[in-house]
Amino acid sequence: MRSSFARQTLMQTIGAEMTRVAPGEVEIELAYRDDLAQQHGYLHAGVVTAIVDSACGYAAMTLTRAVEDILTIEYKANFVAPATGEKMIARSRVLRAGRKVTVCAGDVFALRDGEEKLIATMLATMMTLSPENG
Amino acid sequence: MRSSFARQTLMQTIGAEMTRVAPGEVEIELAYRDDLAQQHGYLHAGVVTAIVDSACGYAAMTLTRAVEDILTIEYKANFVAPATGEKMIARSRVLRAGRKVTVCAGDVFALRDGEEKLIATMLATMMTLSPENG
Amino acid sequence: MRSSFARQTLMQTIGAEMTRVAPGEVEIELAYRDDLAQQHGYLHAGVVTAIVDSACGYAAMTLTRAVEDILTIEYKANFVAPATGEKMIARSRVLRAGRKVTVCAGDVFALRDGEEKLIATMLATMMTLSPENG
Amino acid sequence: MRSSFARQTLMQTIGAEMTRVAPGEVEIELAYRDDLAQQHGYLHAGVVTAIVDSACGYAAMTLTRAVEDILTIEYKANFVAPATGEKMIARSRVLRAGRKVTVCAGDVFALRDGEEKLIATMLATMMTLSPENG
Repeated sequence: MRSSFARQTLMQTIGAEMTRVAPGEVEIELAYRDDLAQQHGYLHAGVVTAIVDSACGYAAMTLTRAVEDILTIEYKANFVAPATGEKMIARSRVLRAGRKVTVCAGDVFALRDGEEKLIATMLATMMTLSPENG
Repeated sequence: MRSSFARQTLMQTIGAEMTRVAPGEVEIELAYRDDLAQQHGYLHAGVVTAIVDSACGYAAMTLTRAVEDILTIEYKANFVAPATGEKMIARSRVLRAGRKVTVCAGDVFALRDGEEKLIATMLATMMTLSPENG
Repeated sequence: MRSSFARQTLMQTIGAEMTRVAPGEVEIELAYRDDLAQQHGYLHAGVVTAIVDSACGYAAMTLTRAVEDILTIEYKANFVAPATGEKMIARSRVLRAGRKVTVCAGDVFALRDGEEKLIATMLATMMTLSPENG
Repeated sequence: MRSSFARQTLMQTIGAEMTRVAPGEVEIELAYRDDLAQQHGYLHAGVVTAIVDSACGYAAMTLTRAVEDILTIEYKANFVAPATGEKMIARSRVLRAGRKVTVCAGDVFALRDGEEKLIATMLATMMTLSPENG
């Protein structure tokens, strides 16, 4: 899983780090950078989405076999506060792991002056690719 | 609008360009780059999402007054084929423009060997911020 | 497909009819009834969702083999105008048919005084259940 | 709120009851009925959606002023297990209450032989209609 994350070149490009892995749960952090912003200087929704999507995908992967891979079928995200602060912390968890489809939830918090504030929440559907089902 | 797009530093960082603007419609293109990929070398879903989210937001903005601004409330995206090819083209259109809430649809196509293939589709809800309603 | 629709007892309970079937496309109509309303007398979002979900599922089914069945994995719907009028017409189409996952789009129009008005739009993900993949 | 729920004629038609109201939280129950089913005899996704949408809307309403009303802008729901059992329990909570937009999450559990099982989860966006903002 760590090697898969290392191959996600986007994560390196934006400076995201996988800071916690547990069965069904993953945390990814991203320091604020002003070259990843939208027009008001907040982190772009696409960047916020990228880290929580990766967190959801790897949370799903913690519950699969080593020979299997995970692809994002779809997700929905709500943006509830501006993505501003020293860093963003995406935390995801598996809601239901199926043989073919896994559903994950993820939240993104902005850390500002030592306090975490919810900025976005995601519901994502992942597909398991296994040698048997292609 | 062009100046707002120019302030979206993420768009410059990833090399996205706004290639078409019409009332209720915007097109954004992104050349493939291997530093924006997920673990299989396809463009990361977050990057695909970023260009179609921006395309949706600016499509909404074409129908607002100059004093108003647009924020993404939420979106949902389906990923239907791998994001691979020479470049990605995000095309968005306003489905329904309201005074406070605008709903947009967007598609992303991958250009490969001169052919366009649908890789993702989005449904997005935008909020209009005006001097009157804050 | 018609027999599957006939087994959807909810469709009979609310009075919905399948009015058109074509490869990858299905239309379902529902006459307005004041016992299916929300607090303002508009059709409840759940009812609007039910007919467009069924339309999406059967649109997907038009492209599967007879031995296969379709289940809704997830959907997202936007409600853009009040569901009021003589009847509602849900029209769905397959955006991308996969072996295991099919993505559909659906719109719901309200017919008022002979004119159709868009009231809701859906993006849905369907799973194909086949004898091979369970 | 109870009177608003009583005006939702769909809730009476399907036999849904509001069983719990607390600040930012609402619970709605629905006994299984075979006239609300899809083709396999499970409750139709539209019915499951209807009760959790209403639960989300009323959860939002617990945090608004009496002069304000709530409308569903959009929602997304994942269906993770068949909707079968003696009854369904929809539980919703406000994730973030804004002046104009409120985001809610809702889960639906099926009660079978005394045990609750998650069958669906929703993320919903609600709009507050107030005398000031129309």
